[in-house]
Amino acid sequence: MRERLASPPAPEILQYLYGPRLAEQRVTLFSPMMMVNQAHVVMLARQGIIDRAAAVKLLREIRALEASGPDGMEWNAALEDVHLNIEAQLIARLGPEVGGRMHTARSRNDLYATVNRIYVRERLLGAAEQLLALRGQMLDLASAHAETIMTGYTHMQPAQPITFGHYLSGVAAGLEREDGRMAAAYASANRSPMGACALAGTSFPIDRALVADLLGFDGVLTNTLDAVATRDYVGDALYALAMAGTVLSRCATDLHHWCSFEYGFVELSDAAAGTSSIMPQKKNPMPLEHTKAKAAHLVGALVSAMGCWKTTPYAHGREVSTESVQVAGDAFTQVAAACALMACSLRGLKVNGERMRAALDRNFAVATDFADALVQEGGLPFRTAHQVVAAAVRKRAERGDAGLNADAVLAAMREMGLSTKLPAERLTLLASPEEAVRRRAHPGGPAPEEVRRMVGQQQEVLEAHRQAWAGRRGRLDEASERLEQAVSGFVG
Amino acid sequence: MRERLASPPAPEILQYLYGPRLAEQRVTLFSPMMMVNQAHVVMLARQGIIDRAAAVKLLREIRALEASGPDGMEWNAALEDVHLNIEAQLIARLGPEVGGRMHTARSRNDLYATVNRIYVRERLLGAAEQLLALRGQMLDLASAHAETIMTGYTHMQPAQPITFGHYLSGVAAGLEREDGRMAAAYASANRSPMGACALAGTSFPIDRALVADLLGFDGVLTNTLDAVATRDYVGDALYALAMAGTVLSRCATDLHHWCSFEYGFVELSDAAAGTSSIMPQKKNPMPLEHTKAKAAHLVGALVSAMGCWKTTPYAHGREVSTESVQVAGDAFTQVAAACALMACSLRGLKVNGERMRAALDRNFAVATDFADALVQEGGLPFRTAHQVVAAAVRKRAERGDAGLNADAVLAAMREMGLSTKLPAERLTLLASPEEAVRRRAHPGGPAPEEVRRMVGQQQEVLEAHRQAWAGRRGRLDEASERLEQAVSGFVG
Amino acid sequence: MRERLASPPAPEILQYLYGPRLAEQRVTLFSPMMMVNQAHVVMLARQGIIDRAAAVKLLREIRALEASGPDGMEWNAALEDVHLNIEAQLIARLGPEVGGRMHTARSRNDLYATVNRIYVRERLLGAAEQLLALRGQMLDLASAHAETIMTGYTHMQPAQPITFGHYLSGVAAGLEREDGRMAAAYASANRSPMGACALAGTSFPIDRALVADLLGFDGVLTNTLDAVATRDYVGDALYALAMAGTVLSRCATDLHHWCSFEYGFVELSDAAAGTSSIMPQKKNPMPLEHTKAKAAHLVGALVSAMGCWKTTPYAHGREVSTESVQVAGDAFTQVAAACALMACSLRGLKVNGERMRAALDRNFAVATDFADALVQEGGLPFRTAHQVVAAAVRKRAERGDAGLNADAVLAAMREMGLSTKLPAERLTLLASPEEAVRRRAHPGGPAPEEVRRMVGQQQEVLEAHRQAWAGRRGRLDEASERLEQAVSGFVG
Amino acid sequence: MRERLASPPAPEILQYLYGPRLAEQRVTLFSPMMMVNQAHVVMLARQGIIDRAAAVKLLREIRALEASGPDGMEWNAALEDVHLNIEAQLIARLGPEVGGRMHTARSRNDLYATVNRIYVRERLLGAAEQLLALRGQMLDLASAHAETIMTGYTHMQPAQPITFGHYLSGVAAGLEREDGRMAAAYASANRSPMGACALAGTSFPIDRALVADLLGFDGVLTNTLDAVATRDYVGDALYALAMAGTVLSRCATDLHHWCSFEYGFVELSDAAAGTSSIMPQKKNPMPLEHTKAKAAHLVGALVSAMGCWKTTPYAHGREVSTESVQVAGDAFTQVAAACALMACSLRGLKVNGERMRAALDRNFAVATDFADALVQEGGLPFRTAHQVVAAAVRKRAERGDAGLNADAVLAAMREMGLSTKLPAERLTLLASPEEAVRRRAHPGGPAPEEVRRMVGQQQEVLEAHRQAWAGRRGRLDEASERLEQAVSGFVG
Repeated sequence: MRERLASPPAPEILQYLYGPRLAEQRVTLFSPMMMVNQAHVVMLARQGIIDRAAAVKLLREIRALEASGPDGMEWNAALEDVHLNIEAQLIARLGPEVGGRMHTARSRNDLYATVNRIYVRERLLGAAEQLLALRGQMLDLASAHAETIMTGYTHMQPAQPITFGHYLSGVAAGLEREDGRMAAAYASANRSPMGACALAGTSFPIDRALVADLLGFDGVLTNTLDAVATRDYVGDALYALAMAGTVLSRCATDLHHWCSFEYGFVELSDAAAGTSSIMPQKKNPMPLEHTKAKAAHLVGALVSAMGCWKTTPYAHGREVSTESVQVAGDAFTQVAAACALMACSLRGLKVNGERMRAALDRNFAVATDFADALVQEGGLPFRTAHQVVAAAVRKRAERGDAGLNADAVLAAMREMGLSTKLPAERLTLLASPEEAVRRRAHPGGPAPEEVRRMVGQQQEVLEAHRQAWAGRRGRLDEASERLEQAVSGFVG
Repeated sequence: MRERLASPPAPEILQYLYGPRLAEQRVTLFSPMMMVNQAHVVMLARQGIIDRAAAVKLLREIRALEASGPDGMEWNAALEDVHLNIEAQLIARLGPEVGGRMHTARSRNDLYATVNRIYVRERLLGAAEQLLALRGQMLDLASAHAETIMTGYTHMQPAQPITFGHYLSGVAAGLEREDGRMAAAYASANRSPMGACALAGTSFPIDRALVADLLGFDGVLTNTLDAVATRDYVGDALYALAMAGTVLSRCATDLHHWCSFEYGFVELSDAAAGTSSIMPQKKNPMPLEHTKAKAAHLVGALVSAMGCWKTTPYAHGREVSTESVQVAGDAFTQVAAACALMACSLRGLKVNGERMRAALDRNFAVATDFADALVQEGGLPFRTAHQVVAAAVRKRAERGDAGLNADAVLAAMREMGLSTKLPAERLTLLASPEEAVRRRAHPGGPAPEEVRRMVGQQQEVLEAHRQAWAGRRGRLDEASERLEQAVSGFVG
Repeated sequence: MRERLASPPAPEILQYLYGPRLAEQRVTLFSPMMMVNQAHVVMLARQGIIDRAAAVKLLREIRALEASGPDGMEWNAALEDVHLNIEAQLIARLGPEVGGRMHTARSRNDLYATVNRIYVRERLLGAAEQLLALRGQMLDLASAHAETIMTGYTHMQPAQPITFGHYLSGVAAGLEREDGRMAAAYASANRSPMGACALAGTSFPIDRALVADLLGFDGVLTNTLDAVATRDYVGDALYALAMAGTVLSRCATDLHHWCSFEYGFVELSDAAAGTSSIMPQKKNPMPLEHTKAKAAHLVGALVSAMGCWKTTPYAHGREVSTESVQVAGDAFTQVAAACALMACSLRGLKVNGERMRAALDRNFAVATDFADALVQEGGLPFRTAHQVVAAAVRKRAERGDAGLNADAVLAAMREMGLSTKLPAERLTLLASPEEAVRRRAHPGGPAPEEVRRMVGQQQEVLEAHRQAWAGRRGRLDEASERLEQAVSGFVG
Repeated sequence: MRERLASPPAPEILQYLYGPRLAEQRVTLFSPMMMVNQAHVVMLARQGIIDRAAAVKLLREIRALEASGPDGMEWNAALEDVHLNIEAQLIARLGPEVGGRMHTARSRNDLYATVNRIYVRERLLGAAEQLLALRGQMLDLASAHAETIMTGYTHMQPAQPITFGHYLSGVAAGLEREDGRMAAAYASANRSPMGACALAGTSFPIDRALVADLLGFDGVLTNTLDAVATRDYVGDALYALAMAGTVLSRCATDLHHWCSFEYGFVELSDAAAGTSSIMPQKKNPMPLEHTKAKAAHLVGALVSAMGCWKTTPYAHGREVSTESVQVAGDAFTQVAAACALMACSLRGLKVNGERMRAALDRNFAVATDFADALVQEGGLPFRTAHQVVAAAVRKRAERGDAGLNADAVLAAMREMGLSTKLPAERLTLLASPEEAVRRRAHPGGPAPEEVRRMVGQQQEVLEAHRQAWAGRRGRLDEASERLEQAVSGFVG
């Protein structure tokens, strides 16, 4: 391979490039490499590019290597990479005449472009499944808490009564859209560069569609230059992960507030909490903090990959082919951690419904309902009703009084020279958190019946998404079966 | 509005928040705001939430304001924002009893969530159309240069012969996938938050679907908390733009190299170039440099928006509702610039086909073809052929000889004790750039006939994408017509 | 200027490059440009590169242009930029023979490199002064609240008693280190590229040090290639700003929590708060939310600038010279906003010391002090004391009891079969928040006396920093005076 | 430690938090932890907080653990972290009465804050030393090539003649400023948080200055809250690394261009190059590509860390203490790789001076010198001279003629109706690359004598920087010696 050059690689090349890359890729890329090697040899033989006998020998040895796994062979960084190590093994076992033929009509450029896609699609499947499970967990919790009334916040200030189920359904809606990003990233990743060779295809009569089919790809990346030049699917994946991280981080932020001493709305299970080495009272909601941080790392990973591409030729090169892809592995692990930590935080979460409800008697989150009642049944224009209630709130807040009530509102009216026939009891009822929530029953509102309906619909969508991902995995399994049979056609 | 508070806004609030935001939004959001105001009042009247007479008065004044445009009214930063200024105008003209009713059953939270989506979808349409036009321009150029043979590069080193058309088709393939991101961002943006009110919907009997329909949205963002809490469509848009920026930056990088004195493959038109104030010979390809930089700004915009969301409650708040959205405007302008600068660079681009072809006589990009010929017709195993040609290249490179030829290759064979019956002339032919390109005719390869076929296919997809975007614009126009008629039903 | 080219700039160039850049730079760079023009002409005349008569004419017209300001002249985007517009004015007024001489022995490359540094150093001065003022405000508040006992948090859970003054002194310590970054950025910016010309200097006998001195620079950027190739000072500035943003964002995060209904520790003045259009009770701490978002934009700006540099030749080019610098203006404005919004939030902040103190009776933040007392005066090993208190806390938490007391701790000891001679009253005293704070009097601790000492020391450092920045400004004023006198030596 | 909680950590906590963190930190933090443990115990004993006998036992066992290294003990992720594992070992060996005392008057919060600083300062030292060596290598090469004339570029177009030495000195100037960032980051990192405990210090009579001194810190981070809340030194380090990455990336970009077939100015040694598996001619400059990519990763790391801080309380928490620091290790490795790969690229770099010089006969980079000569000795005003030469260049470029000469320039003059007494030979001489370079001898110019002077000065600064870093390392060694003696005072 280095006949062109008069000397072996410099020590820095081994230490910083070949060494670490080989150490990582023999774990991550060994299995995809074996798949591609088999599919490629099958194609070469079917197209008559290599003869059947050679194909049989090659496939036997590839299978043997695959069976003994990455720990079953010696790896040598001086041989550069996973492919060249494997090729060297095959040549050692079969001689150059046969062993050297596996790499006909392909290049490391299309080879690595392909195995990296196989690796990424597998991790996308895993991440998507974790996200589906977490969404299911949230929707179940939402359903269970469709009637658990709590304060809804804007700007982190009490705003209006909602339910905990309504909140969770809202976060789940964010995750539902996230599934679209994951599916788009999968579709983007799942196309085959094989046959692009170095960049210009080959003069051998290859069958690109066959290789793609045996490897479970949805199709071929047609233009051969584009096929080795682009890694845009990595961007699609990293962006999807970063957005997943954002939704989880925002939910973790809320739970982090709500499990504080001051809110006391929820409490993590003891299994999900950490303690302090010196403060005996401590029960720290670590998983929530880590979840938030993961979102930062995922943005960093996206920046890192996009930085590798930005001012790079539309062509194969190391910034694109190696470096930009390298960040994906860790990014998937960060997302897996975020999902697992959220799952663990939600599992066994103690929801203190009484405390949630009690807060509404002390904060002013029903103020809008007082105003709305004055409009709807009290005959006031909205802007006036708003002024009345604002005055009542301001007076109570200045006196340090907790909560709002009909008396305070009616007193404020009187002070402004206004009157209403709406009885105090009716006003009290209309502006109660229970009624406030119950009456917001239009699509998407917090009324328990609507939350249940909406969650039901979300669960249907979730089920559809589950089946879609199962379908993706199923098609990979079928392709794997086709490859298995095709190889068996040679090696029996 | 500030009855709750005892003092007007601090000067810093006016200087840094209300002032600049109003200055920007009266330009960007005036028109969307007028659309939403009309659709909302129509719905309020149809649902009986306000009476017809009030609706008629409101719609007349809204239309009058709309007709005189943003410069037709006074704006006051102390009133905070575009909506409150408009509401103040309506109240001044119609009195609080009528003017104050427009804002019934909604909140600024869902209002701004909505108008920002209208603004972003409009800019997405514009950006998508610019990208379609640029892709068309590239494909036309690709078609025209299907036979313009040039060196293909990997690692910025000569690799194999391709054609300039093949290159351009490759970049266009990247832009074709980009259309998917733009379409996904549009679908993500084009859902209506109206009816979510502050976060919890409303106790008024609103019709969310009607408002969404009159505004041209594809549907309603159901969960009311989610509707005001999420700006994920901004992420989808910014990511799509950043990836567009990346593709354009990479293409600009290539053209920047190729229009250098040393390559001399292409030359920008004089209209696209800049000069120097002191170096008389200068013809600087500025648009290419700026295009590359735009990609950096687009990544920065994405980081900025995602940073606003990361550790923010899943709820309405300023980081999400205002700050994260603010970066979008400039990002769209950056993309518009990148597209325009690339269009201007490609328009009138002089392609020096002779120089492109001549380079192949001096560099060693046909080496693979010599090796392939030795395998295919010379009977050598691939690895051996590779060694032979590598040795020939090394010898010539060390002597400073330009290009590779059959004599050099055959001499290298002899030195390695090998022989072949393949005649020198046949070898010369097979390894000529023309033949090398011609023989790579499988799907996606650089053979002129295949490039033409592939570009034809890409043009079909382009046409389908054009129609899809025309459909999106058409549906907005139809909705606009529906709104127009609905309003006319009141105001005649 | 475009003699080299056969056509005027394309419309896209005018619309996206020359137009917007000129619109911005005539505001930001007019004054720096006039300074540099004068200093350069003085140098040219002193070195005999142009004759005195020409210098006199040039300086008179430059002064006249300067006096009438940027709005006093016509600007033409077809002339590209601020410099070429000004040069065209001078040539129009003085003829090419004299007007054309100003640009001798320089280039737009060193010229813009220089005026941008003048612009950035001015904004750095402004930002540094705002940060100094804000730090002073924090330290004053810290001093006033040296005895205001509050809960200190880790992981957003009650940890140990501190004081509000201790907290504010901690944040001010972060801002103190920030001053070092600002000062480093200023030193980095304040070196003169003039004389570098296009990249290679000039064959005219220039005096680079003189120009640098007249412009207030601390010295010359020696290597002429480096002088036009680097914008690293912009990175230094943007990084400093981003870190300032981070400190302010973190402080805003705390205040945002503490002004929530649930904490109720502080309350923003009414002047600093916003209201809601539909929720009458609302008092929203908007400035804190915007402050947090500014930090996101500042990271975005840094990413944007660094992206412009990453894969760019070490040479002059548009990505570096224009695009990477363009983000700085907005970044300075974001920081100015963050400082102003924090200043406005702290001004008139109501600190509810009673509520802060009362929380310590309900949470378990004194647990460590119970444990420490058991070790220090109760004879228990630390790990055992920790276990005792943890058991007491757990028991009370499970029963929903608020706060910890000596009885509970001693009961837990007894249950674990342990005993102590430490009397309950003594234990109560030692573990009181007041005593807990008082006893932490070592350097940096929360004891009021130590907080006062530490804040005093911080105020001394602040004063030293103030003088350092005043010195920087003073040196610019002196240089301005030197330039004034030098010019007067020509024009009287 | 988990007495406060009723259950062991959830499996997700072990899998995603404790497990991976322990695996990493037992490698990176074991040694710093042992240093801190010794210094802390010495201080506790000297202050009488623990008795001498306990100190002796603790120090003996700590030394024993240290001697057997991280592989000498069992690690248990269920115990959470490195510290708790070590403490458990000590308690197992010495009993709780003695083993439990090591952690008196400190917390994991200040402990980890401290050991992370020790780790980062060590890596900063390593990175700084690598950067010094690389700068030295560049300056040596600059000195050797002070007379190697080459084309200087702006906008990647030939601009003016410089020398390769001038170029390298320019890049080295960028690295010289970089040393300031590294030194600032080191100073920022090298302050001791010990004694801050959880956040509020301690009621034990500790001596913070002593611990800081024994650990080689330059001083104490005074405010105890700030001490555990800030990780700004990580930002300082990551920013410095990212800027180092940027300079190296830009230099790599130039070398990447110049080692292309088309430029052919330089050639990497064979040891630094890679080959292709199918293209026999390939000699790929991989190290340059990887160097460029590293800069992207370093920006990503900075974004990641800053994202962890942005909206986090100014307090101890996992986002800050653990997650934001975690990215530093990999970032240092990326920089080490970039430095090593650049060192390896420069080592044995073949500089083709003839080809560099020959390019100047074909491109138009001497145009400015023709114009300057017409001004300086030909009596033309600058703007006219610029027009003459531009016209000459344009004519030759349109005819495809290479290079510029006196005849072409004089012909252009005549065509414009101008004349000069400057003889053609004199013009030819003045505009020769040799003369052009020689005459630019002012400070920073490319004249060989000036390049040698400038490089000499840069080498002096380099030597001063070397000594400064040696001083930093020396002070750590001295502290290490003081700690050694202090411990020996107990254990003999």
